[in-house]
Amino acid sequence: MILKGEGVGDSKYAIGIDVGATNLKLGIVGASGDVIAHKLVPLGEKKSPGEIVSLIAGQSKELAGRSPKGPIAAGCGIPGIVDFESGIIIQSPNLPQWRDVPARDEIAKALGLPTIVDNDANIYALGEQRMGAGRGHNNLVLLTLGTGIGGGLILDGDIFHGDVGFAGEVGHIVVERDGVPCGCGGRGCLERYAASHGFATHASRLSKKERERLLAEAGVDIEGLSAQLVARLAGQGNGIAGRLWKEFGLYLGVGIATLINILGVTTFVIGGGIAKSWDLFIGPARDEIARHTYARNCEALTLVPAALGDNAGVIGAALEAISVN
Amino acid sequence: MILKGEGVGDSKYAIGIDVGATNLKLGIVGASGDVIAHKLVPLGEKKSPGEIVSLIAGQSKELAGRSPKGPIAAGCGIPGIVDFESGIIIQSPNLPQWRDVPARDEIAKALGLPTIVDNDANIYALGEQRMGAGRGHNNLVLLTLGTGIGGGLILDGDIFHGDVGFAGEVGHIVVERDGVPCGCGGRGCLERYAASHGFATHASRLSKKERERLLAEAGVDIEGLSAQLVARLAGQGNGIAGRLWKEFGLYLGVGIATLINILGVTTFVIGGGIAKSWDLFIGPARDEIARHTYARNCEALTLVPAALGDNAGVIGAALEAISVN
Repeated sequence: MILKGEGVGDSKYAIGIDVGATNLKLGIVGASGDVIAHKLVPLGEKKSPGEIVSLIAGQSKELAGRSPKGPIAAGCGIPGIVDFESGIIIQSPNLPQWRDVPARDEIAKALGLPTIVDNDANIYALGEQRMGAGRGHNNLVLLTLGTGIGGGLILDGDIFHGDVGFAGEVGHIVVERDGVPCGCGGRGCLERYAASHGFATHASRLSKKERERLLAEAGVDIEGLSAQLVARLAGQGNGIAGRLWKEFGLYLGVGIATLINILGVTTFVIGGGIAKSWDLFIGPARDEIARHTYARNCEALTLVPAALGDNAGVIGAALEAISVN
Repeated sequence: MILKGEGVGDSKYAIGIDVGATNLKLGIVGASGDVIAHKLVPLGEKKSPGEIVSLIAGQSKELAGRSPKGPIAAGCGIPGIVDFESGIIIQSPNLPQWRDVPARDEIAKALGLPTIVDNDANIYALGEQRMGAGRGHNNLVLLTLGTGIGGGLILDGDIFHGDVGFAGEVGHIVVERDGVPCGCGGRGCLERYAASHGFATHASRLSKKERERLLAEAGVDIEGLSAQLVARLAGQGNGIAGRLWKEFGLYLGVGIATLINILGVTTFVIGGGIAKSWDLFIGPARDEIARHTYARNCEALTLVPAALGDNAGVIGAALEAISVN
């Protein structure tokens, strides 16, 4: 069976799976990174490990039939803390039933294929490095800006997992030792300043008068200040909303500067919903990076939005599965 | 020629060189990490690149004669910013004449051996990982606490250099976005709180009365508060001096927590002169790490003082040279 598509000449294919909080994405991907076929399936109420694994198995079998050659492996990204070595999902804030779940072995059994599971930001990072905004860069940090900040590290060409699979928890870079409390139990974590929570943080530091003016115009209380809402207000010329985005950018810059100083890595790819508001935060972020890093690193900086959109996870998961099988 | 020593059975030997601000250390090291012979030579007034390279050449020739087999390579650690790929020393705060010096090629020519040059903290890290406090750990961060904070990253068993050789500048982790100004041009860098500069920072935050009491007892002005002096006062039961060490430890803990959250690495080796005051700062550091990291990472933590002392650099430089030749 021969399908049209650049990837039909690939020697190996894998199934890439990207489990989100609301949708399941799957694809057949060739070793060159080409997506031969893909599907998006809403999870609906099916959020338990058993239900999602069944869904993955059914959808994968259908997709596998469209692969030029039988897939050699499957890779699966999951939002949460994943122990890569053991293949266990330790916890997932958005899928609370996934706690200490041996997902790798369960998916492998259901598909009858060698399987890897990894943190979703890790596979996005690999996707972007191989096929997206980070192409040609051997070292790369991917940040996803959303409710929190996800992170994936590509070091010397591969995903770096650290000792216990927790590498890339960049949302918990401490930017203010006695700063705003974080859900993790600490204080001053980056994601309290440069993710959706950041707007409440920055608004709380406005003068009372300015804060009240902003909230009246927004029509929400302080916790209701979403990135989308503050972006809309800033787009309408609201200067206070613009200043919140500036603060957001400055803190993001501090976090990136710390990453540059620790890793000496100069390629950063920014994804997640908030990356759509690029022009509202990237200038202040660049200024702050320049203030905190060596000129030579700063000159080498590649700071770009993610390019693959919805396919990053499917591509990255499949390519990781091919590379270890 | 056969010498006594555990390493005489090694298949390969290299010359390890550790250039300090005041001394040059050299050794013949076997592939197993055993030091067959070593020398410490004061630099005196000889601090220019040409003078130091001549000194290295003369001393190495003498040492090479004591190697069971001819050395296959040389490795050299230098304090400063080193571009590993090109072998160029970009700058060195303690050896100001070393600016854009192609040290690798000059040493290679003088010795007639393949040579690598690297940042001194990187080679200490490798030495400690292979033969010292980090033995058996595949991932490790070494921090040297002195005038500033040096850092070396061992990731997946090897020194990680980053894109332009600047990896491990952990002294410039930003722990307070609008904190104390740093020599790098930024603000709030870790080394302004958890290296010798930290004592002035923390003393400046005491009440006026407490600060005056401390300085009167110390007999110095605020910039004169060295680690050694504050350790002596704390040892004499001075509670204010003890509190400065506590602050030092808390900030060190914040920096280590950020490293854990970014890298998922759980082995930290602390060297440098200030590590001698271990008991004065390590408790608060551990508390702060626990506050800012996932329990699973924290439980896996190995936080230990460096073990090799003066030989770490010589061993690490030689082993790095062997591993790439």
